[in-house]
Amino acid sequence: MHRSFFYRLSILLAFWFGMAMPIAQAEDGYDTWLRYPPVAEQKLLKAYQKQLAQIVVEGESPTMAAAKAELQRGLSGLLAKPIASGESKLSKHALVIGTPANSPLIASLNLTNRLAALGSEGYLLESTRINKREVIIIAANSDVGVLYGSFHFLRLLQTQQSLDKLSIASAPKLQHRVVNHWDNLNRLVERGYAGLSLWDWGTLPEHKSQRYKDYARINASLGINGTVINNVNSDPRVLSDQFLQKIAGLADAFRPYGIKLYLSINYNSPRAFGDLDTADPLDPRVQQWWKERTEKVYQYIPDFGGYLVKANSEGQPGPQDYKRNHADGANMLAAALKPYGGVVFWRAFVYSPDIGDRFRGSYDEFKPLDGKFADNVILQVKNGPIDFQPREPYSPLFSAMEKTNMMMEFQVTQEYFGFATHLAYQGPLFEESLRTETYAKGEGSTIGNILQGKTFNSKRTGMAAVINPGTDRNWTGHPFVQSSWYAFGRMAWDHDISAEAAAEEWLRMTFSNDKKFIDPVKNMMMASREAGVNYRSPLGLTHLYSQGDHYGPAPWTANLERPDWTAIYYHRAEKDGIGFDRTKTGSNAIAQYPSVLAKQYGDLSAVPEDLMLWFHHVSWDHKMKSGRTLWDELVHKYYEGVDQVRSMQREWDKLEGYIDAERFGQVKALLIVQERDAVIWRDSCVLYFQTFSGKAISAGYEKPKHDLEYYKALARTRYVPEPWHPASSSRVLK
Amino acid sequence: MHRSFFYRLSILLAFWFGMAMPIAQAEDGYDTWLRYPPVAEQKLLKAYQKQLAQIVVEGESPTMAAAKAELQRGLSGLLAKPIASGESKLSKHALVIGTPANSPLIASLNLTNRLAALGSEGYLLESTRINKREVIIIAANSDVGVLYGSFHFLRLLQTQQSLDKLSIASAPKLQHRVVNHWDNLNRLVERGYAGLSLWDWGTLPEHKSQRYKDYARINASLGINGTVINNVNSDPRVLSDQFLQKIAGLADAFRPYGIKLYLSINYNSPRAFGDLDTADPLDPRVQQWWKERTEKVYQYIPDFGGYLVKANSEGQPGPQDYKRNHADGANMLAAALKPYGGVVFWRAFVYSPDIGDRFRGSYDEFKPLDGKFADNVILQVKNGPIDFQPREPYSPLFSAMEKTNMMMEFQVTQEYFGFATHLAYQGPLFEESLRTETYAKGEGSTIGNILQGKTFNSKRTGMAAVINPGTDRNWTGHPFVQSSWYAFGRMAWDHDISAEAAAEEWLRMTFSNDKKFIDPVKNMMMASREAGVNYRSPLGLTHLYSQGDHYGPAPWTANLERPDWTAIYYHRAEKDGIGFDRTKTGSNAIAQYPSVLAKQYGDLSAVPEDLMLWFHHVSWDHKMKSGRTLWDELVHKYYEGVDQVRSMQREWDKLEGYIDAERFGQVKALLIVQERDAVIWRDSCVLYFQTFSGKAISAGYEKPKHDLEYYKALARTRYVPEPWHPASSSRVLK
Repeated sequence: MHRSFFYRLSILLAFWFGMAMPIAQAEDGYDTWLRYPPVAEQKLLKAYQKQLAQIVVEGESPTMAAAKAELQRGLSGLLAKPIASGESKLSKHALVIGTPANSPLIASLNLTNRLAALGSEGYLLESTRINKREVIIIAANSDVGVLYGSFHFLRLLQTQQSLDKLSIASAPKLQHRVVNHWDNLNRLVERGYAGLSLWDWGTLPEHKSQRYKDYARINASLGINGTVINNVNSDPRVLSDQFLQKIAGLADAFRPYGIKLYLSINYNSPRAFGDLDTADPLDPRVQQWWKERTEKVYQYIPDFGGYLVKANSEGQPGPQDYKRNHADGANMLAAALKPYGGVVFWRAFVYSPDIGDRFRGSYDEFKPLDGKFADNVILQVKNGPIDFQPREPYSPLFSAMEKTNMMMEFQVTQEYFGFATHLAYQGPLFEESLRTETYAKGEGSTIGNILQGKTFNSKRTGMAAVINPGTDRNWTGHPFVQSSWYAFGRMAWDHDISAEAAAEEWLRMTFSNDKKFIDPVKNMMMASREAGVNYRSPLGLTHLYSQGDHYGPAPWTANLERPDWTAIYYHRAEKDGIGFDRTKTGSNAIAQYPSVLAKQYGDLSAVPEDLMLWFHHVSWDHKMKSGRTLWDELVHKYYEGVDQVRSMQREWDKLEGYIDAERFGQVKALLIVQERDAVIWRDSCVLYFQTFSGKAISAGYEKPKHDLEYYKALARTRYVPEPWHPASSSRVLK
Repeated sequence: MHRSFFYRLSILLAFWFGMAMPIAQAEDGYDTWLRYPPVAEQKLLKAYQKQLAQIVVEGESPTMAAAKAELQRGLSGLLAKPIASGESKLSKHALVIGTPANSPLIASLNLTNRLAALGSEGYLLESTRINKREVIIIAANSDVGVLYGSFHFLRLLQTQQSLDKLSIASAPKLQHRVVNHWDNLNRLVERGYAGLSLWDWGTLPEHKSQRYKDYARINASLGINGTVINNVNSDPRVLSDQFLQKIAGLADAFRPYGIKLYLSINYNSPRAFGDLDTADPLDPRVQQWWKERTEKVYQYIPDFGGYLVKANSEGQPGPQDYKRNHADGANMLAAALKPYGGVVFWRAFVYSPDIGDRFRGSYDEFKPLDGKFADNVILQVKNGPIDFQPREPYSPLFSAMEKTNMMMEFQVTQEYFGFATHLAYQGPLFEESLRTETYAKGEGSTIGNILQGKTFNSKRTGMAAVINPGTDRNWTGHPFVQSSWYAFGRMAWDHDISAEAAAEEWLRMTFSNDKKFIDPVKNMMMASREAGVNYRSPLGLTHLYSQGDHYGPAPWTANLERPDWTAIYYHRAEKDGIGFDRTKTGSNAIAQYPSVLAKQYGDLSAVPEDLMLWFHHVSWDHKMKSGRTLWDELVHKYYEGVDQVRSMQREWDKLEGYIDAERFGQVKALLIVQERDAVIWRDSCVLYFQTFSGKAISAGYEKPKHDLEYYKALARTRYVPEPWHPASSSRVLK
């Protein structure tokens, strides 16, 4: 970036004299966790400065250039000194980066065997000697491995780790580490809440915004290697030449960062293009159409990743429109992609209207197809059986599809977690999901291990998350939504990384290494998901939202087009009790789990209480482990959720001055809204469920602020964000 | 803004060693023309440094604080040194700012008489002495006058003017200097093309984004004193308590900068709120409703400015729905606002479907009402009789409404000028319009003078512009749309400021004071509007757009619901010639002009050629002043338009390195698109009109790239931006 001397001078002087700098909003969240301020701990800073005198890069490629640029940018900031970078004149304390193929210095270390164990994306960070000089190396088998290692190396300094006797080997446990965008071609983002789509179709491919590159940097820093850039509710035009030309411009921007571009396709494309009157996957004309269109895609994007498909789901077209099954549908596309090495991500999110229990839908449709999918198809399964609820049991498909490649679909965007308004770190949800023991093949059959291919020996592995970055300056709307993106990426690389560890890294890199800031905020983050469960739907309740907006409570919602879009369908509150009986006496969905779990979940005395009402219809008087009745426990949980938000507020307000005023003020303001929303959730649900239980709210709890009628009216008239953005209202108000 | 020591240190060191700074995109256009890099000219810098040692501010108010903060920010940057600011300990070379009321130092100068001539918003900038010390003063009658003077003072340094013997007095020529936003409550911006609405309803009023303040700074720097924050196609909910509470948060953010907030209202509000079954302005219940609702508005916003109304226009409700006229409608609202000092901006943009010539519509409806409007009503009239076309004759209302307050409505957003994709500086259009001689009261009756109240002695004066800033980082999408915002603001303050002077100021402040950059780019800017006329609709042609999108050409458009929404309605091309006969033999719209002009415009030999086809249906063989036939001249103009764009491209490409790479690259990319679009316009129009003229395109011109059928198909299938954003496509493509 060109900057004039005088511009720099102004910065210098502005700094020196403590004046306001003539630069707007440097701490506006745009830099995410890729912030490189000087290391604050002085001893460590000096150690780092001593250990790092030079960057040596021998290889030349766009990816090596990206790694070098990131290290220069990062180290010159972190070390508070300029760092030289040359080709191969090795001084003491050099940082040498490369592969055995592109760097004679790295090749001289004979790392072949050790690198072989790290695959095509892993890397070594190591203190060693070259020509008797002390150096640190970042070595890998591929350029992108070097890039990943470079981000890891910078993270060590950003989080103030020692570089002494460095010896780190890392390789991803999953192959496909993918982010999904639900971006429409008109730039509105479904469930995004952070501005318009980043992809500025109006000026692509001529103008490549700096944001495309920074977006790629952010993802690459986590080891994410794929992005599906458009909504699963896909506009067929995404495969038109006009759009492919624009999309190729994005792929060009992402390529140096090792990020493959994928597209969500519309199954009806051959018809939408006006070429055929069918999209039947077994029709040779349809097969030929996809073959040709896919060839065209690869002409524009030679390293195109593949297709993501939402078929026969929520009104989307699919193979069932022609009496074919999901395997027929997926395999036809897989055949078109196979010559180029592309893959199909086929979503398992289906629930036909005529099944009795939506919970069962996905398993009932897919289990019979186990083993029928082509080897370049991966079934993309949401973590739970319903739809990204604050807490769900795991989707039974994970333990059932022994002969099918499967990948996880998580959600970073907070569709059911208060949009970009509430603070709700998703790390604990991801961790809970990945560490769930399924007993599919006995102990150790965790979801993480299943995804990794350890349990069923699957050949293709992966993890995806629906992320929400948009044109909002800080990418994600609420600054803390960034933390869930971060945690997802880290866990996609290594599902054993804990939510707490990811939170701490993120805080250190994004805000400060000051423990007085980190510790309380990490506690807030770790509690925030459970708070969101508690004030919305504790004890295994689920989906009590206003239909459509997924933001505010309306547990009384009934009489919609489909029963499984109402709230009463899910909670089944009655005079006698509450909860959805999924045991043998009910829908028997528990039979979709391995027997150990089916037994546990089916036994009211053994089922974990936080999943209880997912599986059982339980008497209001049922005694809980706390000694309270179910009713009292439910009330307790709702009040606890509000208390947790208030505690977050108190903690945050104490931290003024530890970070910049702009981000501090934004979070503070959003916590005010969150507290108000949490009270609305609590009161709406408690008062509504009380009409069934007929029981009192224990003394000692604050009274609901208003009566039930008020909250029902509020749900009809309150300010409600549009589905695509939390920034408008859909109802006439006074 | 709080910044940690270490953060500052990073800036310092990054500067010192010439490294890339760990701050993203300082030159991304966000700072607009409020950039304060050190003065590059060394002699001048030294002179400034000597002349400015201290800022002295005695008064205390949010507005004085804003002036002080801006001067500190600006001077510490421009002077490349810290500048002290204290209260009243006067040293040599102080900059003393204040009013006689808030500053004893200013009061000591006995400026009362001189300031009286400058009204409530004017200011003096002057070199003088206080207590025998040399000082520069910024003095005014009001705090906001001091703020305006401070921005003017900074502009002197930004544009490298001498401060020697400073003596500047300035006062606005118009009272209401207002920007209009066509922002919907769902945050989509009609004809905005620069992202979502700036107003983040989802987080207001709790979170006051830094952008609100910077938006106010940008406007205040030009002397803009009002903003209408929502679309004239108004959602009634804007008057709901829930929205008023949020809107009050915006008003709070704007207030220190002297910017009043206005709202566009929906005439049907009493019905939309469910309170009444009528909105008849003569119904006492309706009057009472508006009285009460307006009282409510002032409870939230004590200094609320008033209402902007689009009534009985393009389907909007209005008094005519109840057989009342515009004066009845406006005066009812004016009565509700009067107790608080509020005003009504009543738009004259009407054209009923049953008139023969849309050109006549506005005059025919409003002229009979001249003198009937309450004194706190101002008629807001678009510059031309149709709708912001690349060139229009002036709206005949300006010379006709002798007893009615009138204000101008210009358009900065490029609805008909290539959205945020084309470079099209609007300064020349504004200047052309404001300097038009109407002869309404003999010579000197220019539009500018009429607006100023000189011609008809009107009591309320003003100028408005529809601006487009949105969440795009640089506010306006195309960086050069900022220049039209700038020119509008400067001309609203003083309609005698030339487009060229405004362009030069803008370039110096926004990019560089280097003449090698300024001169060619100023030439580009000054030619850009005429280029846009030439490649779209030269010689008085108009409105040849695809219906709805207003972006690409479709001069063949016919058979729409309303004839005045087609293109053939406007150009009237036939075998015998082209153009709309508005003389006595046609619609006789020319009779709406004062006789001198009616005579000139009605005479084919006297009408300015650039307005010719607005008023005459002219033979293809008509001899033009150039000696060419009309057909050849038309072809010549279309080709000239494309050549002008190509020349802009060549000039710009030579300037790489004079400014930052980011803004340079964006403009370069957009010029590529503009050249392609200009060719499409030229070829589409020339080939289509050729089907009527039957004449050849002269040898020597490059051949059209494709045939007419190609361009007709392209108009059906080409990538077309959504009406609200240039970022999506509305048609299925291959």
